[in-house]
Amino acid sequence: MSQECRPIHAVTMGDAAGSGAEIVAKTLAEPEIREMCRSIVVGDAATMKDAVRITGAPGRVRAIDDVSQAEFEDGVIEVLDLKNIDLGKLTRGRVDVMSGKASYEYIKVATELTLAGKTDAIVTSAINKEALNKAGYHYDGHTGLLAELCGGPEVAMMLVAGNLRVCHVSTHVSLSEAINRVRPERILTVIELARNAVRDMGIEDPRIAVPGINPHSGEDGLFGDEEPTYILPAIEEARRRGYNVTDRPLPPDTAFFRARDGEFDVVIAMYHDQGHIAIKMLGIWLGVNVTLGLPIIRTSVDHGTNYGKAGKGTADPRSMIESMKLATVMAHGRKGAGAS
Amino acid sequence: MSQECRPIHAVTMGDAAGSGAEIVAKTLAEPEIREMCRSIVVGDAATMKDAVRITGAPGRVRAIDDVSQAEFEDGVIEVLDLKNIDLGKLTRGRVDVMSGKASYEYIKVATELTLAGKTDAIVTSAINKEALNKAGYHYDGHTGLLAELCGGPEVAMMLVAGNLRVCHVSTHVSLSEAINRVRPERILTVIELARNAVRDMGIEDPRIAVPGINPHSGEDGLFGDEEPTYILPAIEEARRRGYNVTDRPLPPDTAFFRARDGEFDVVIAMYHDQGHIAIKMLGIWLGVNVTLGLPIIRTSVDHGTNYGKAGKGTADPRSMIESMKLATVMAHGRKGAGAS
Repeated sequence: MSQECRPIHAVTMGDAAGSGAEIVAKTLAEPEIREMCRSIVVGDAATMKDAVRITGAPGRVRAIDDVSQAEFEDGVIEVLDLKNIDLGKLTRGRVDVMSGKASYEYIKVATELTLAGKTDAIVTSAINKEALNKAGYHYDGHTGLLAELCGGPEVAMMLVAGNLRVCHVSTHVSLSEAINRVRPERILTVIELARNAVRDMGIEDPRIAVPGINPHSGEDGLFGDEEPTYILPAIEEARRRGYNVTDRPLPPDTAFFRARDGEFDVVIAMYHDQGHIAIKMLGIWLGVNVTLGLPIIRTSVDHGTNYGKAGKGTADPRSMIESMKLATVMAHGRKGAGAS
Repeated sequence: MSQECRPIHAVTMGDAAGSGAEIVAKTLAEPEIREMCRSIVVGDAATMKDAVRITGAPGRVRAIDDVSQAEFEDGVIEVLDLKNIDLGKLTRGRVDVMSGKASYEYIKVATELTLAGKTDAIVTSAINKEALNKAGYHYDGHTGLLAELCGGPEVAMMLVAGNLRVCHVSTHVSLSEAINRVRPERILTVIELARNAVRDMGIEDPRIAVPGINPHSGEDGLFGDEEPTYILPAIEEARRRGYNVTDRPLPPDTAFFRARDGEFDVVIAMYHDQGHIAIKMLGIWLGVNVTLGLPIIRTSVDHGTNYGKAGKGTADPRSMIESMKLATVMAHGRKGAGAS
């Protein structure tokens, strides 16, 4: 693939007190990643230099002030330097207001660059919600913040691990409230978002599994009636639109392993843990989190800041590597072969 | 191990229109199973002979009228013959009233034998609920029926697959009702039952994981308050009793893979699918279902009647093989080394 085909990812450095910078340094040293995409780290150059030193990853940090300065030379880590971390004052492994503020700024700049078409996707490192909130940014995490920066579209969370793709009707609400969110309009929106995303991933006519919410999908109304009342109408409308959706709500406990085994391309989880339990059984270090519904492509690591390993150079980069790969596939899928 | 040490299992043949008899024939042909336990099939001798023919499994069926006649000779499948299937009238792969009635009778006799101490455990094949109900036995499956035959104790369902053991606070109720069942008394009962069962499996001081019910266990009350209100009090009482229980409700999406990876011996699932989704990701043909709270040991296959493969000899016996192994371990655990 010629240089020009490779999409450009805006990679946020994440919470500086955590392992994000080290994971980014390791990821950008992977030949496979360098061959498939170009990267601009949106972060703090001094912190990235320190991460290269800590991890011993090959690569030289080059600070830039504007993405137009990026040359994507081999062996170089381009960092759009926001100069917002004072390394002398940083204590790794602890909630830190300076890091919380900085991690907000990385997301804001990376999102704006991608909205402006200067980068093709945003790939995010882990942030700390408490640090974010203590710095005065009151969001429940990346998703709400990204939605706001993008003008407030209706979004959905997709998790991807290997063969298994799961998109969620709701996420961070109580289980009681999650039951109330199982309504035809929302289910249909999530089916649409999931279908479009899987098409961006290169699957022309995605096979979509819709599970129920009750055990055994309620066994014909024996225990719970959300399936006939709310889920089936959404399925029927999706099928009227020509989507390749299962003809009835599947038993939740078998839908996910059937997808893992290749029978479906995506599963519409009716609540957070229905999807998350299944995905995490496949290995927490392989998962990728994708926000659907934004005007931009956004993938993310599916783990936390890993404060326990910060500064030690031992954090596992696999989720970030998978996030970079998936963003690359989606950038090509959305734009056709000639991305950026 | 001398012959006398091997426990005796009452193995029910299950729904005759399904694959149960074939799975039993294959299982009893396994040298490993014959070496660890003795078996009496509670079923129909003619159907078992047919299953031996269909599967080509080595073994000769010997019909007996009373368990005292069993000789456990090598190469012989002892069948306590209830003579309740007319093979000429049996259509495999379809709900059949005759099979429903017969499958009830196998369970009743096997339970009575085990309650009387003539057998050490009951190991059950799959039955069809619709056939059972059409035959006039109105139960939601094995568990309710077994509880009634045993005088109505409070029971709980445990699933076991490899390293992962999961015990459920509730099973076949709607998700809304499952939330109402998350109460300290019930959670504590299930912790007790799970702990005793895992001790029967040979683990002296089981490490017990208690997840929450809300995503991330509610994040300190941010979404849902069942964790502080109902789950934490049960945990605290269990710890007062000296049980090795996690000190707070774990995030549900990580509790199960941590147990699978060896960190806990059993997880207390707060509702059916929390546990079932995790277990089934490990492979549906390896799971064993154990009913806890009965005065007898009962293990079971964790799959259905498999009507699709009935009569073809191709049904997978692994879940039954694992059920036989686990019943053997539990029989030794409960009785000490000299079972029966």
